[in-house]
Amino acid sequence: MERTRIAQLFADAESLGGTTVTVAGWVRSVRDMKNFGFVTVNDGSCFKDLQVVMSRDTLANYDEIAHQVAGAAVICAGEVKLTPDAPQPFELAAATIEVAGASAGDYPLQKKRTTPEFLRTQQHLRPRTNLFRAVFRIRSVAANAIHTFFQDRGFVYVNTPIITTSDCEGAGEMFHVTTLDLANVPKNDDGTVDYTQDFFGKPASLTVSGQLNAENFAMAFGDVYTFGPTFRAENSNTARHAAEFWMIEPEIAFADLEDDMNLAEDMLKFVISYVMEKCPDELNMLNKFVDKGLIERLTHVANSDFARVTYTEAIEILEAAVAKGQKFEFPVSWGIDLQTEHERFLTEQYFKKPTFVTDYPVEIKAFYMRLNDDGKTVAAADCLVPGIGEIVGGSQREERLDVLERRISELGMDPEQYKYYCDLRRFGTCKHAGFGLGFERLVMYLTGVSNIRDVIPHPRTVGNAEF
Amino acid sequence: MERTRIAQLFADAESLGGTTVTVAGWVRSVRDMKNFGFVTVNDGSCFKDLQVVMSRDTLANYDEIAHQVAGAAVICAGEVKLTPDAPQPFELAAATIEVAGASAGDYPLQKKRTTPEFLRTQQHLRPRTNLFRAVFRIRSVAANAIHTFFQDRGFVYVNTPIITTSDCEGAGEMFHVTTLDLANVPKNDDGTVDYTQDFFGKPASLTVSGQLNAENFAMAFGDVYTFGPTFRAENSNTARHAAEFWMIEPEIAFADLEDDMNLAEDMLKFVISYVMEKCPDELNMLNKFVDKGLIERLTHVANSDFARVTYTEAIEILEAAVAKGQKFEFPVSWGIDLQTEHERFLTEQYFKKPTFVTDYPVEIKAFYMRLNDDGKTVAAADCLVPGIGEIVGGSQREERLDVLERRISELGMDPEQYKYYCDLRRFGTCKHAGFGLGFERLVMYLTGVSNIRDVIPHPRTVGNAEF
Repeated sequence: MERTRIAQLFADAESLGGTTVTVAGWVRSVRDMKNFGFVTVNDGSCFKDLQVVMSRDTLANYDEIAHQVAGAAVICAGEVKLTPDAPQPFELAAATIEVAGASAGDYPLQKKRTTPEFLRTQQHLRPRTNLFRAVFRIRSVAANAIHTFFQDRGFVYVNTPIITTSDCEGAGEMFHVTTLDLANVPKNDDGTVDYTQDFFGKPASLTVSGQLNAENFAMAFGDVYTFGPTFRAENSNTARHAAEFWMIEPEIAFADLEDDMNLAEDMLKFVISYVMEKCPDELNMLNKFVDKGLIERLTHVANSDFARVTYTEAIEILEAAVAKGQKFEFPVSWGIDLQTEHERFLTEQYFKKPTFVTDYPVEIKAFYMRLNDDGKTVAAADCLVPGIGEIVGGSQREERLDVLERRISELGMDPEQYKYYCDLRRFGTCKHAGFGLGFERLVMYLTGVSNIRDVIPHPRTVGNAEF
Repeated sequence: MERTRIAQLFADAESLGGTTVTVAGWVRSVRDMKNFGFVTVNDGSCFKDLQVVMSRDTLANYDEIAHQVAGAAVICAGEVKLTPDAPQPFELAAATIEVAGASAGDYPLQKKRTTPEFLRTQQHLRPRTNLFRAVFRIRSVAANAIHTFFQDRGFVYVNTPIITTSDCEGAGEMFHVTTLDLANVPKNDDGTVDYTQDFFGKPASLTVSGQLNAENFAMAFGDVYTFGPTFRAENSNTARHAAEFWMIEPEIAFADLEDDMNLAEDMLKFVISYVMEKCPDELNMLNKFVDKGLIERLTHVANSDFARVTYTEAIEILEAAVAKGQKFEFPVSWGIDLQTEHERFLTEQYFKKPTFVTDYPVEIKAFYMRLNDDGKTVAAADCLVPGIGEIVGGSQREERLDVLERRISELGMDPEQYKYYCDLRRFGTCKHAGFGLGFERLVMYLTGVSNIRDVIPHPRTVGNAEF
């Protein structure tokens, strides 16, 4: 069967007018006016629907089609008729319509407006709705934008491992991976688990970040990035946390924190522009029904410089706001970890644009971040965006072997676990930096959707791993 | 620091000749001729090295540089000198060379040829060798080729879930995912595991395929693909199996097995041509040192039609070969699952090109494959390639609700687990098809590398999950 996609019809309507084509898709609605009728069909190739016109005179199975309901799969052949005076630029005058598969009467996506909450129980069908058709195409286009951005700049894509045995410290927030029989876990004489019988011969878990692995490759290829799933077994049931989410983690050699922020800013602007160019229909719908300021905000961000402020300055700004009557749930003082409310105040109220906060206190950041000359702060940079809070977390990495070893020892970490990581500092170390971008938070930002469950095909959260 | 990448020097040598640039990278070798010397530097931006020339007259720290060893990180500034009479088109006449990080004397990648086996113990450093620099760049370029192929054709990229609770049947080959304390698993009164205390409230495992989820999205977007990690807890220590590997799984609506094979063939040819265009230096090295027939084979495959043969015909070919004296370890008769030796005979000896084998016996294939009219075979198609065996496994899916439900019941599977899957057949079912491509096998095919451990950044196999 030679199919024409509806996207192609809209792209080439002028030249296709008068030709006969076959379109296959799913019925959105049927309007039967007794002797003629309209079938609205979407095939998923673009956001727009095709209007199919049928006439009792010419369509042998007119009554069969008139009785179809939303969700039915149909194959329509006929002539493309340009309709310069109608709202849609053309319609398909059906010569034949074949029902590939009818839709049962209990089809859950009925015309009455369905809530995102209800649709989370219909994850296998919700991509057929306008909201999710828009969100999941934007997700796909944004993913491609990210690959395009990095590949065009010569970055090497690295698939860092999902299963890891080397970072089982924060085990409270990690998922165990095992082939042991959970009903009958083998034990050593002292009652501990006998991991020699497990698949990898030792405890294993799901990765929380590919960064340390990516550094291995940055020290060979210079510029690399990861883009893959990461996991947190956090027992937090919020609109912004999922147990499984995708991260992008670039890592660049011979680069400092300034280079790192420039890269993150360039990347975010590139992705926004790319999605705005490729998905105008999706963004228009989201702008109309989900987030009225969406397109204006994205346009603004793509065209203006991000703010940059040190953590110390940020604390001063927050303290000044509190003095003027701003209320926060969590108190503000130098040394605190910024809470989402603080982040959102800075980016939404104060700077009114994406904001890098840099040079955080050493105590609240990871061991691998480069110690600044003040001995109190590290060369970290988080990027905050309106509506979301932190979207990018980055840093210059500690490239000095002695400082790194001292940090590992101060924090009571096992040096043996970080032998390879330290090796990179023994064999040709150099300044380098990188960041992590939470892909789902980016998609939320791009779509205006406020719950992470609605930007993941089949989300995994505490107590939920259906479908 | 304004760096120029070595890739850019090679791309724009003519126009850069005579200009002053700064290059940062890692030392491959230093040759000290007393008053002048050569430093070979690679920055990972391309396969080629840069020759840096230094002179005692002009380089203040000449002796420091002359004593550097392989692996050191250096920052070299100087003039690009075109050298039309030399093997390399230009060199860098160093005005300054700064050592960013020296390399300790026990650097494991010494000049003497190191085996892939040894380098597997040095996974953090092996990307700096010629072999792995070639393999991992090709892996990255091939990944981008796949995204480009599908996105240019309007496919939607879907991130199907890694953690799954819905397919715990073949649990013997699946990894459990749990937050339960393995040393102290909570039990119900009857001794079974109390999964209500686990993160998802039920048994969970790592996905073996995203196909069933991808079908949900194909029934909305028409053409979709996945590209993500999948897992097998197989206790098989072969050169072709890893516990963690990446799969590409396209799924297309209103399509049959013929469309599916055409898509797979187009995709493989596209990826081969793309890699040959982008990675000529890498392929030349691999062709010279790893697999002498590599480039000839890839060129041939990119330009010839794949063979197509039914399983029944394939068995006849194998039986005829046995009658003529061909020896196989596993006996051949209609109904067997083809072994790698059979697959390789068909594609390497008989057809001498990639070969689709179609219409396998229903007994040896999965429940979701469409039953042919003969009632004995299913509309499956595996693509076999020389040197690897099966690289693509695809099928038309059973779109008929009654046939699908009968198969699920015949196989004693739990219908409740497949409710959503059957729903797709109740609400607008249509012919559809898809396939799975093992990404690592593709990279092996593209590089001529024969062990899967050498095409994965940090491979996970039985007993091995280092780095």
